[in-house]
Amino acid sequence: MGGDHGPHECVPGALRALRSDPELRLLLVGDAARIDPLLATLTQAERARIEIVPASEVVEMHEHPRDAIRRKKSSSMRVCVDLVKAGRAAGCVSAGNTGALTAIAHFVLKTIPGVERAAIMSAIPSANGHTHMLDLGANTGATAVQLGQFAVMGSIVVRDVYGVAAPRVGLLNIGEEDIKGHEIVQEAHALLAALPVRYVGFVEGDDIFSGELDVVVTDGFTGNVALKTMEGVAGLIAGRLRREFGASAASRLAGLVARPVLRRVGADLDPRRYNGACMVGVAGVVVKSHGSADALAFSRAVTLAALAARRGLTGHIAQALAAQGS
Amino acid sequence: MGGDHGPHECVPGALRALRSDPELRLLLVGDAARIDPLLATLTQAERARIEIVPASEVVEMHEHPRDAIRRKKSSSMRVCVDLVKAGRAAGCVSAGNTGALTAIAHFVLKTIPGVERAAIMSAIPSANGHTHMLDLGANTGATAVQLGQFAVMGSIVVRDVYGVAAPRVGLLNIGEEDIKGHEIVQEAHALLAALPVRYVGFVEGDDIFSGELDVVVTDGFTGNVALKTMEGVAGLIAGRLRREFGASAASRLAGLVARPVLRRVGADLDPRRYNGACMVGVAGVVVKSHGSADALAFSRAVTLAALAARRGLTGHIAQALAAQGS
Repeated sequence: MGGDHGPHECVPGALRALRSDPELRLLLVGDAARIDPLLATLTQAERARIEIVPASEVVEMHEHPRDAIRRKKSSSMRVCVDLVKAGRAAGCVSAGNTGALTAIAHFVLKTIPGVERAAIMSAIPSANGHTHMLDLGANTGATAVQLGQFAVMGSIVVRDVYGVAAPRVGLLNIGEEDIKGHEIVQEAHALLAALPVRYVGFVEGDDIFSGELDVVVTDGFTGNVALKTMEGVAGLIAGRLRREFGASAASRLAGLVARPVLRRVGADLDPRRYNGACMVGVAGVVVKSHGSADALAFSRAVTLAALAARRGLTGHIAQALAAQGS
Repeated sequence: MGGDHGPHECVPGALRALRSDPELRLLLVGDAARIDPLLATLTQAERARIEIVPASEVVEMHEHPRDAIRRKKSSSMRVCVDLVKAGRAAGCVSAGNTGALTAIAHFVLKTIPGVERAAIMSAIPSANGHTHMLDLGANTGATAVQLGQFAVMGSIVVRDVYGVAAPRVGLLNIGEEDIKGHEIVQEAHALLAALPVRYVGFVEGDDIFSGELDVVVTDGFTGNVALKTMEGVAGLIAGRLRREFGASAASRLAGLVARPVLRRVGADLDPRRYNGACMVGVAGVVVKSHGSADALAFSRAVTLAALAARRGLTGHIAQALAAQGS
């Protein structure tokens, strides 16, 4: 139980997911003394679907991934991933340190045979639904071969978890023409065209939101910057709207009248609705929740993990990569 | 006279800049038969500050930069940059093909001694003003040394053109901790700390908008993706607001009431206000306008070029780089 809020938001979030999914069973990993009181409101039947697995430590948000692996063998994050490895959990969710989760997931679960590096993938709102983007920061870069693997894995996630039969895949670049970009995207462009994915070619940053793509593939550096940039722009616009609607009595009145519409737009684009990033490519279901996730947001991440596990995501990725390798 | 609209928007834009700046003189480069009719509304005194320089060709928007250099020696873009080289123009503005402009500017003007690569730099709206970001796509990558040069050049632009005495410089990364990021940003981090700039350390994508930075340094690939992502998010939010405010009679009424406030926010964040990206590091003032710029937006780019030329930007960058090299 890490993240910015610890069990305080994660436990209510997990319970929300539990209530909305009668088949879901939870292993809550962390400090039992802090978790147990948060379960007081449950019915007996609900409580019976929960087990507390004690963990005596927490990986801190700014801890070095290497230290998290070496020194925190009884951290909640490590115990949680160990449960997946042991087959006791079908998947795990963490709101903790992304670097540490990536490192621990790689160290404990290993990557699926044929996968060089796992990637973090999440839904991004678009003009008519979502686009799914990877890598959002599991790695600090990517080779052309790795970008190709991200394309294959991303397509499977969108098909399995989101039900899109033939996901359209774009490769993020700084222009749509074939000649654009650096050597790695040039090489990946040729590679993706030959892969069993529905590759539509190079796309630019604004195309992420066009509604004409299902999967956007990029390296973890570019993807993470793009993701944080989105959050920043959305925050800037929301801040300006608040400021201007509060600027005078007339504006405040206009704000009251417009509030239901503004709320609908806000709810529709609320990043909490899209919380939960899959770490695709490790041999097990691992979902990263935003560190600052509240209960609602955390519940989405838990539901995502349950869905990925049920649909057999890891097995499907393994099959696809094996077919590609052979 | 290139860009998406040709002389149709560029000429009225240039005239708008001319009218607001009594000291400005313009050389309009392109097809005289198309430009001349657009000057009909000018007073004699205004017309006397304009000269038409004929150019028989245009670099197409999707032309390869190499072809633009080799085959389009009488294109408006090339003639325009040649005028700067010859000292007949103090600076030039183009709404044309970015890759071609970058290549022609490098080929004709060369970089300032000590500058390895020029970068494209533009203002981005932030919580309390602007942040200035480079490289936005002149290059497909950057070495640590080049990132260091971008930091020095960016600081000079913000000081000279925007009047910020000691600009705060951040290096874009996927985390703020010293250990984060790939080798190039790691190396650049150490380098920037030793340079005569006010380096505040690693920053993330959302920090661009925080109002706590004046210059954000990144490679041209990441910078271009971030810029296009900003445009995409802003367009997505504007589209949702339009849709929801048009969804019912009550929403349309709310939209009418809220319109003055929404317009203020829109005008404040209007990318046309921030049009005009400096190509910093070439030996001459070169400003890139957005290809789809209308007259208002294009006028901003012309005003920016005039300001950069008057403040002696190129000379100041040359001095700083010479001092750094010695």
